[in-house]
Amino acid sequence: MRSFASDNNAGVHPRVMEALLAANKDHAVGYGDDEHSRRARETLKRHFGDDSQSYFVFLGTAANVLGLSALVRSYQSVICAQTAHINVDEGGAPERFLGSKLIGVPHTNGKITPEAIAPALESRGFEHHSQPAAVSITQPTELGALYSLEELAAIGEFCKREGLRLHMDGARISNAAAALGVSLAELTRDVGVDVLSLGGCKNGLMYGEAVVFMRPGLDTDFRYMRKQAMQLGSKMRYLSAQIQAMYGTDLWIENGRHANAMAQLLGQKAGAVDGVEITRPIETNAVFATMPLKVIERLREEFYFYVWEPTRPEVRWMTSFDTTEDDVETFVAALQRAVAA
Amino acid sequence: MRSFASDNNAGVHPRVMEALLAANKDHAVGYGDDEHSRRARETLKRHFGDDSQSYFVFLGTAANVLGLSALVRSYQSVICAQTAHINVDEGGAPERFLGSKLIGVPHTNGKITPEAIAPALESRGFEHHSQPAAVSITQPTELGALYSLEELAAIGEFCKREGLRLHMDGARISNAAAALGVSLAELTRDVGVDVLSLGGCKNGLMYGEAVVFMRPGLDTDFRYMRKQAMQLGSKMRYLSAQIQAMYGTDLWIENGRHANAMAQLLGQKAGAVDGVEITRPIETNAVFATMPLKVIERLREEFYFYVWEPTRPEVRWMTSFDTTEDDVETFVAALQRAVAA
Amino acid sequence: MRSFASDNNAGVHPRVMEALLAANKDHAVGYGDDEHSRRARETLKRHFGDDSQSYFVFLGTAANVLGLSALVRSYQSVICAQTAHINVDEGGAPERFLGSKLIGVPHTNGKITPEAIAPALESRGFEHHSQPAAVSITQPTELGALYSLEELAAIGEFCKREGLRLHMDGARISNAAAALGVSLAELTRDVGVDVLSLGGCKNGLMYGEAVVFMRPGLDTDFRYMRKQAMQLGSKMRYLSAQIQAMYGTDLWIENGRHANAMAQLLGQKAGAVDGVEITRPIETNAVFATMPLKVIERLREEFYFYVWEPTRPEVRWMTSFDTTEDDVETFVAALQRAVAA
Amino acid sequence: MRSFASDNNAGVHPRVMEALLAANKDHAVGYGDDEHSRRARETLKRHFGDDSQSYFVFLGTAANVLGLSALVRSYQSVICAQTAHINVDEGGAPERFLGSKLIGVPHTNGKITPEAIAPALESRGFEHHSQPAAVSITQPTELGALYSLEELAAIGEFCKREGLRLHMDGARISNAAAALGVSLAELTRDVGVDVLSLGGCKNGLMYGEAVVFMRPGLDTDFRYMRKQAMQLGSKMRYLSAQIQAMYGTDLWIENGRHANAMAQLLGQKAGAVDGVEITRPIETNAVFATMPLKVIERLREEFYFYVWEPTRPEVRWMTSFDTTEDDVETFVAALQRAVAA
Repeated sequence: MRSFASDNNAGVHPRVMEALLAANKDHAVGYGDDEHSRRARETLKRHFGDDSQSYFVFLGTAANVLGLSALVRSYQSVICAQTAHINVDEGGAPERFLGSKLIGVPHTNGKITPEAIAPALESRGFEHHSQPAAVSITQPTELGALYSLEELAAIGEFCKREGLRLHMDGARISNAAAALGVSLAELTRDVGVDVLSLGGCKNGLMYGEAVVFMRPGLDTDFRYMRKQAMQLGSKMRYLSAQIQAMYGTDLWIENGRHANAMAQLLGQKAGAVDGVEITRPIETNAVFATMPLKVIERLREEFYFYVWEPTRPEVRWMTSFDTTEDDVETFVAALQRAVAA
Repeated sequence: MRSFASDNNAGVHPRVMEALLAANKDHAVGYGDDEHSRRARETLKRHFGDDSQSYFVFLGTAANVLGLSALVRSYQSVICAQTAHINVDEGGAPERFLGSKLIGVPHTNGKITPEAIAPALESRGFEHHSQPAAVSITQPTELGALYSLEELAAIGEFCKREGLRLHMDGARISNAAAALGVSLAELTRDVGVDVLSLGGCKNGLMYGEAVVFMRPGLDTDFRYMRKQAMQLGSKMRYLSAQIQAMYGTDLWIENGRHANAMAQLLGQKAGAVDGVEITRPIETNAVFATMPLKVIERLREEFYFYVWEPTRPEVRWMTSFDTTEDDVETFVAALQRAVAA
Repeated sequence: MRSFASDNNAGVHPRVMEALLAANKDHAVGYGDDEHSRRARETLKRHFGDDSQSYFVFLGTAANVLGLSALVRSYQSVICAQTAHINVDEGGAPERFLGSKLIGVPHTNGKITPEAIAPALESRGFEHHSQPAAVSITQPTELGALYSLEELAAIGEFCKREGLRLHMDGARISNAAAALGVSLAELTRDVGVDVLSLGGCKNGLMYGEAVVFMRPGLDTDFRYMRKQAMQLGSKMRYLSAQIQAMYGTDLWIENGRHANAMAQLLGQKAGAVDGVEITRPIETNAVFATMPLKVIERLREEFYFYVWEPTRPEVRWMTSFDTTEDDVETFVAALQRAVAA
Repeated sequence: MRSFASDNNAGVHPRVMEALLAANKDHAVGYGDDEHSRRARETLKRHFGDDSQSYFVFLGTAANVLGLSALVRSYQSVICAQTAHINVDEGGAPERFLGSKLIGVPHTNGKITPEAIAPALESRGFEHHSQPAAVSITQPTELGALYSLEELAAIGEFCKREGLRLHMDGARISNAAAALGVSLAELTRDVGVDVLSLGGCKNGLMYGEAVVFMRPGLDTDFRYMRKQAMQLGSKMRYLSAQIQAMYGTDLWIENGRHANAMAQLLGQKAGAVDGVEITRPIETNAVFATMPLKVIERLREEFYFYVWEPTRPEVRWMTSFDTTEDDVETFVAALQRAVAA
């Protein structure tokens, strides 16, 4: 089976699997006090600076919720795009665990701006309203769009000026870095991000993400928060070894580049098919397209993928680190058959 | 490094690692809707019956908290031993996630009885008190002790009579089954357990436990609870493949038996050392002992392990699936040197 | 001081105060097990039927949050108007106490429709989304608008068909009943409302509202929920005596009628002033109007009231049970002076 | 009806009722921004110093939970006596609202000591345990006992040394101040209390307590916490007027003295009855006694009161601000008849 449903339908990258095998020697102290974990944390310091501090968790929803839990109290709210993963795809985990309100604001392909955020700040200082205290952005967005460095810096400056913390959901940040040709630090710390959810699973890990705090003072007592949030694994060395395999080498950016290139290819080829229209700019590894419902139904008999907007109807196709040109050809051939039928 | 600090300091069993490698083929639908996951759920049905239903989560604390979240509401309380893992070793996750009070009752080596539970029920029906609604027991206990089937049945009947749900923390249930020579169903479903936290990580998995509901009607909407509790992994096939490798073969009981045997050996040999006293019955894979503080300090220079009760002082040593007779010999030799010094 | 800022700026109705004085005799058992409380609960059964069950709480936010807590679990969401009090004016209490997501949908003057609700239901059955389980409407709305009985019934039928519970925030329900000329039961139970927040404070009580469950089975264990939500008062007789004074006589409807009439008068007179435009239908006791910012500023030097929409700018004026024609005259005279200046 | 069941079975003190009547003039801005509220807050500054800051809430459970919510985060725990009101009589509200663990420690008549607290601190710094961050004591205790100033200071110094915050549940603090002959500040601020729940309802108010922060910096954003906890009343002037009536005059201490004196009288007279044994020192307004079960049953036919410890059996009798010598005589006469029967 080959899928364009999600980049998490891909498996584990061979070099990550090798790292897991290599880590499987002897005993190791649990909960992160081992050599693999120390090394992986050092690796992330090389990416984000000596002032940064990283904590590993099992999955992206936990990285987001836990990162935000260090930034807001329950009477405070988080401003994000209406389409943000935290707002629509985490089963209400933010509300449950933070006790906070999320304020979804208008967006363009999942991107928000200081202008979109500003109106939500009018409730500040008024006792009856949840108090906005953090902004969360997704880079690239859930709709495959990219914030430019300038756009990020504008949000970062706005947040600083307004006393808001800035969180970035970087579940696919490797794809963003690859597309923009910048370092992870340039994409986060340097534009004012306070806390990053650093993705792993969607780019070739078996499991594991990191919560990266860019400055001292943000992660006070965070290890207790992680434990209470049921995200402290005992055999931490295996999670750490994966992080190390990905971010201690160029694997992260190679995988990101590859998935992006495959999305471009898919977009070109699929977009050339009659009746198929690419609906959003292809900036990373997501391709959105509209086509007749019948075409979608036929294609889904062969390939599983999501209908994103049933009313248009618009579908989402994701490429991943292991998508091949052959996969794209096979898929587009099936698409052509579906159109022809 | 070889450790007697915890059974989670051991690595991943080779057959589990092989299963991970084997699962790493092609793409698979995420979140549990894949072949590996279906097979693993079927495997657990063979253990616990067709009426049972299993859900996989990342770690034991999550299995406990989530299992309990299906049994109690926030205004209800959970009765457990004062020493229960949920009460002292989960960083307050139960209180945070359930919103419930835990009522710790007196115990013997971690075991509780209907007589110990009964006084906590006096608050029922009185509006000012959190309402007891579930009992949680750990088999074997955090102190290595075993409930007999009779003792379990007595608790099960008591709970049924009193309208209480029964949860079992089975993080090391394989060690219990091995010691008692009974099946997993006999140890749980047949004595009245409603929900089981089925261990994996402490018996040779990389990560992964299961929440097993013994009867229909208990797991209503549980998949939404799991998602909201940040325990729904995307690449579920890898978790499932591990469960399958362990519970789809005899690996679980073999590992349990082996660890238990090594604890017996360690107990005999260490207990024969001058000034070392074994303090609790060795019924599974835990050995508790007292000795002079100086001896502990010298031994800890070579081997990491926990001082359980600093005042006595009493230490805890755990054996695991991969503990060898050599490991025991080496450790006891070091213990003898520490005593001699 | 006379205010048009809110109907809660008014004091306590003299007959309510008399009831408080009359209740202040002898000792009484606490927490609701007293004669005053029994009588008040019986009174509400006369309004809502023998199948209904009422619980008294201190304030409206608590009535809303607690009523909803009986209808939804944390992984479920509540659909409401974007402008709903629960969504914007309760400081995030619903998210904190329910752990649930609120889904704000488009509205007209605070009123929502089955058509506005329906799109939010698309997420049902999809594990990654908070599951819609209840609808909350406000009658009259926060913008002073009224649902007709037909509109209410349409929502009630829609909810029944879709398996959604229906909550009504009736903080000002007396104003609605007065305006529509219907009974409290016709306005709630008969159109399919499951749980009502029955207002008191905005209509002349010192404090106190009721959560009214329309059918058996909805309020299971609710008394424990109320206690845990810190809303069980000890000297309950005083709260109950107020409820009795209001709903055991015609005081509730008289007060509602009077406030509505004063709003009509205010609307006519203020709307006739040059440069002042009444912006929404005056259906109950709220008047919304636009006028030049300078006029607002001058008028606010004499009278405190809220600027509802700073951008237009639109103000809100509320009348109350004790607003007099003189009050209206005085206020409009000041408005005229402000315009003239 | 005259009751010795609880001091909250008494009514509202006439001077408090007068204050409510006097406050019922004109309109007033809601939510605490009114003259009555300003005056009452100033009054409490006179008691607790200019650095103190007070917030009014509806009831004692809310005062306790909210006060603690300013001192601990969910991963932190609160140490208290096993018998503390927060631990056993608040329906699990602390666990639900704080998300924290309460650690009940051994006590004498409800009093705890640094020695009793210290063992609970061993879990500090260990990631798997909820982190102790605050101590909560009740003065006088739920069993009527008094901490001396020396005992309080010892706890205060211990907390300061150990970096723990100190909360005092002062639901009946007037009885303590009366018994010890000290000021409210001497009893709280001067011995190191950080936050006080200042009682009102049990000493003659209709409703209303205060959360008093003794130093700046402790109440950051507390007004948002109060709102989110559903404890911000709209017609705040009535709550404030009661606080003012009680603490702006000597009413608080007079009421406390009177109730204490009545408890002494009751203890003397009841203790002299054959077969009745006073079981705890009578230091404030609570009297505990044992007697044959038959006597209790007969007496309860005439007077409602609580059986505190069914096994002994031990009963609790409370006196209040309005208990008269006649009430005591009548009650003891009934007790004598019950014994004689």
